[in-house]
Amino acid sequence: MKKIFTTIFALQALLVFSQEQEKMIRQIYDNALSKSKCYGWLDHLSNKIGARLSGSAGAEKAIQYTKAQLETLGLDRVYLQEVMVPHWVRGEKESAYIQVGKEKTSVSICALGGSVATPKNGIAAQVIEVKHLEELAQLGAEKLKGKIVFYNRPFETGNIEAFVSYGHAVDQRYLGAREASKYGAVGTIVRSMNFRLDDFPHTGAQSYGDIPVSQYIPTAAISTNGAELLSKKLKENPKLTFWFKQSCETLPEVLSYNVIGEIKGSEHPENVMIVGGHLDSWDLADGAHDDGAGVVQSMEVLHLLKKIGYRPKNTIRVVLFMNEENGGRGGEKYQAAAQVNNENHIFAMESDSGGFSPRGFSFEGDDEAMKKAMNFKSLFEPYQLHIFEKGHTGSDIAPLTGKQLLKAGLRPDSQRYFDYHHAATDTFDAINKRELELGAAAMASLIYLMDL
Amino acid sequence: MKKIFTTIFALQALLVFSQEQEKMIRQIYDNALSKSKCYGWLDHLSNKIGARLSGSAGAEKAIQYTKAQLETLGLDRVYLQEVMVPHWVRGEKESAYIQVGKEKTSVSICALGGSVATPKNGIAAQVIEVKHLEELAQLGAEKLKGKIVFYNRPFETGNIEAFVSYGHAVDQRYLGAREASKYGAVGTIVRSMNFRLDDFPHTGAQSYGDIPVSQYIPTAAISTNGAELLSKKLKENPKLTFWFKQSCETLPEVLSYNVIGEIKGSEHPENVMIVGGHLDSWDLADGAHDDGAGVVQSMEVLHLLKKIGYRPKNTIRVVLFMNEENGGRGGEKYQAAAQVNNENHIFAMESDSGGFSPRGFSFEGDDEAMKKAMNFKSLFEPYQLHIFEKGHTGSDIAPLTGKQLLKAGLRPDSQRYFDYHHAATDTFDAINKRELELGAAAMASLIYLMDL
Repeated sequence: MKKIFTTIFALQALLVFSQEQEKMIRQIYDNALSKSKCYGWLDHLSNKIGARLSGSAGAEKAIQYTKAQLETLGLDRVYLQEVMVPHWVRGEKESAYIQVGKEKTSVSICALGGSVATPKNGIAAQVIEVKHLEELAQLGAEKLKGKIVFYNRPFETGNIEAFVSYGHAVDQRYLGAREASKYGAVGTIVRSMNFRLDDFPHTGAQSYGDIPVSQYIPTAAISTNGAELLSKKLKENPKLTFWFKQSCETLPEVLSYNVIGEIKGSEHPENVMIVGGHLDSWDLADGAHDDGAGVVQSMEVLHLLKKIGYRPKNTIRVVLFMNEENGGRGGEKYQAAAQVNNENHIFAMESDSGGFSPRGFSFEGDDEAMKKAMNFKSLFEPYQLHIFEKGHTGSDIAPLTGKQLLKAGLRPDSQRYFDYHHAATDTFDAINKRELELGAAAMASLIYLMDL
Repeated sequence: MKKIFTTIFALQALLVFSQEQEKMIRQIYDNALSKSKCYGWLDHLSNKIGARLSGSAGAEKAIQYTKAQLETLGLDRVYLQEVMVPHWVRGEKESAYIQVGKEKTSVSICALGGSVATPKNGIAAQVIEVKHLEELAQLGAEKLKGKIVFYNRPFETGNIEAFVSYGHAVDQRYLGAREASKYGAVGTIVRSMNFRLDDFPHTGAQSYGDIPVSQYIPTAAISTNGAELLSKKLKENPKLTFWFKQSCETLPEVLSYNVIGEIKGSEHPENVMIVGGHLDSWDLADGAHDDGAGVVQSMEVLHLLKKIGYRPKNTIRVVLFMNEENGGRGGEKYQAAAQVNNENHIFAMESDSGGFSPRGFSFEGDDEAMKKAMNFKSLFEPYQLHIFEKGHTGSDIAPLTGKQLLKAGLRPDSQRYFDYHHAATDTFDAINKRELELGAAAMASLIYLMDL
């Protein structure tokens, strides 16, 4: 009999506990959807500051702005963490055309991040179209020497998660120039990383790896419409000429910062939970989705916790990382400093997949940590978050380590993301206020649950 | 021993059956994401035809276009079903201003569907702002006579499903004029049915119900920014004047059509399954989301089934309903004809919630039919459809009856819908190709499963 009563009592306690959790999450969502600051912050970051490539004036302004905003939230500490970052600049707007006989057809291109410039008058050469890096070895130096290699493998359409298609195509952008250079190619043109047929070239990081500097060749992305046109014209005239000109360059490294705000833990201040996004963006637009959204959502998490008067047991930090796009220095620096300071990170969450309707979370962690996260799944169903699964969480939190560290990444709906990613279209008007707020609410709810 | 073998055999059969289902759904999705026609159809409907309000030239063109397109799909039968529809026209673009002393501030309004015109020179009157219809009785004729009633209850922000907020606000639009007229008001202005603060007024149906024609008063929607401004100015000057002018009118009814395409069932041709959307739209834009998306997705379902060579056991019909927006005549006519022809409808699905990323389905039906639908839920999880629940399915299929009839409604992500709904913003550029295709694939998959 006593045992039965004990069980009933335990069940009741569990029920009260779970009702308390439900109530808190409801409160977080209500505040996020009516009193949040994230949309206004993103408006400022996008429309008053704009592009924030590492080392740029925009990046510096974004550091000062977000620091100042965090200072208004009544946190226990707001500070900057020094980090040296690469400083690549695009220079003049690129130009390119396809030449068949005397007929020149202009196409939209943009230099890839880290690329070298062409000579002042540009480069003109015949074009070899390939779909896969592996084709280079088959073609060999004989066919590739002096040529421009044109990587034209489109996104696979069949994947439901758009990031899978990106992952299966992005080797062309990241490794294309490095590999083509080995066979004597003079430049590479890469089909933009998106599904949609449009006129916007999408930039992004590329790496020459360890090839000698003398073998660096200029590399650019071409819009998907441009890629379709070039491919069509190549079928008609395999000997056509492609000309392009870009004046980008890599300047000396620059001192920059991660921006950090913190609420001290009331019971276990030594345990640290972080939520973050990256403050830098590419240079072609405002970076509203990549990753302005993640930045303001992460700031909003701390705003919401303060708003509802929640006092966390563990220390909670917002970290706005610098230099995710072309170096990852901010994430590395944060981890190095955590090691030096002997900090115990138990949870890290990143939002860097756009500001769209949240669909769930990806997790990385050991089985026990995963099990804890999975227990919360049903609490998110009323908020239309259903995806709770293992997977990539975030580039900036990738270097972070810790015993029993669980990592989470917000999973917004991915279908529209590559319409904007790294292109001139990634602007504030592509953001929906409620979608942004729902993401922030989901993140704040998960932080709250993980703090218990 | 024999019993064990029988069980194993039955389980194996079940497994093979379920693998076959998985394979078919994969095939449907692969085709939808690479070889579908729906995006091109919607481009034509939106950009070549445009607005399709019942009785308009656009509606007639849309009937002819969709019929012609269905005729290219190799269906067993394509036909038109006559239906008489109301014919309301907006006339000249509306104008409105707030007047304080000699200062006039223009605001964006649009007549609500079915409204009468103002006198030629417009109407000017003092304004009474209310949040709820119930306030009218408290204010009484003394305070409302000769006034313009301004309904200004915003969408509730806390609901996760945007349609819930719409449902809780739309009485102001649908019943506002009818109720205010009873107290002698001379006109009503209704805050637009959306979350976002912007300058676009949203039209939509309103009904004078059974009040005498002589008591019909003009009613218009005001943009959310306009509503905020009017409310602010009313606080400063409760005696300000609002002036508005509109020249809309209701013309005699017009002969129009539902467009129907059919694949005859190979085993049970007498059992009918339908999939549809509504071909009419409001007049302020292309109606790309409402409901061009549902129309082309429904057509795509039959295209996909033909494409993969699926021969349905039951008769499958696409029904493009006329006049959902301001009368619902198409849905009523379809049901009446089904009764006359003694047709046995076993399944009806509608897509009329926008062309956004599909999140699942709502269902209406008895327990047994619901159970059948729920059994398929796990098959949709790899495609990121998670919502399978009871709820509203579609206005056009609402009149339809049948023994054991199960109804389903596609549930796209709802956050952005009311940025476009019934406003000048509902254009083709707000459509994402993959989101549209994923909806069509989900619908085709459910039709295929329900056919088994």
